[in-house]
Amino acid sequence: MPAKTRLHVCITCRTSDSTVNGNQNDARDGKILLDALVKNQKSSADVEIVPVECLSNCKSGCSLALNAAGKWGYVYGHLNPDVHHEDILKLATAYAQSDDGIVPWRERPEGVRRNVIARIPPIRS
Amino acid sequence: MPAKTRLHVCITCRTSDSTVNGNQNDARDGKILLDALVKNQKSSADVEIVPVECLSNCKSGCSLALNAAGKWGYVYGHLNPDVHHEDILKLATAYAQSDDGIVPWRERPEGVRRNVIARIPPIRS
Repeated sequence: MPAKTRLHVCITCRTSDSTVNGNQNDARDGKILLDALVKNQKSSADVEIVPVECLSNCKSGCSLALNAAGKWGYVYGHLNPDVHHEDILKLATAYAQSDDGIVPWRERPEGVRRNVIARIPPIRS
Repeated sequence: MPAKTRLHVCITCRTSDSTVNGNQNDARDGKILLDALVKNQKSSADVEIVPVECLSNCKSGCSLALNAAGKWGYVYGHLNPDVHHEDILKLATAYAQSDDGIVPWRERPEGVRRNVIARIPPIRS
């Protein structure tokens, strides 16, 4: 069985460009992103969506992190709930299907392929 | 036995501010940082220093990543080999001694405490 992929969504984030979606109310953009991802995820997807409080990437929110045992972990930022949720779900599926967490540039959904903030090596025992 | 801590140093990085140390030669700043860390590490330190090619944080180099099984992983950036190597080694030791990878703000060496780029949750099975 492949390692479980987790898509962690920071629910305390605001978007780095608050004019993008004009969210002027109290709802955090990260929480809006989480809700959009959960709502649109296909039940067959082998990705667990997990809320998390702060990925220390506040200047570049909204943010998410993808990881799985034995794979490179990735943090993405500058995300927008309205624009990016479909591409994020496609990215997470491609990540889950990869051997090492590395999704080749051309296979990353175009809307989010420039949004990588950093990656972190797999944990070896 | 505590989980092995690894300090991954990007050896393909250049500093985000190339005027900081005036490195105009071909040596990558990340490789200079790696060498400084290895040279100054105490033999008793329970941290393995590992070279890595690219942490996808090129705009904010030099970069490093800290991780260990069961702990939050951290990426640090905007590092300078001359200025930061001692603080990085202290930070790595504090990380190794932590239960969850979270080194409280006041316990992070002052020179690098503002250099966090992002963090990524522990991997659960």
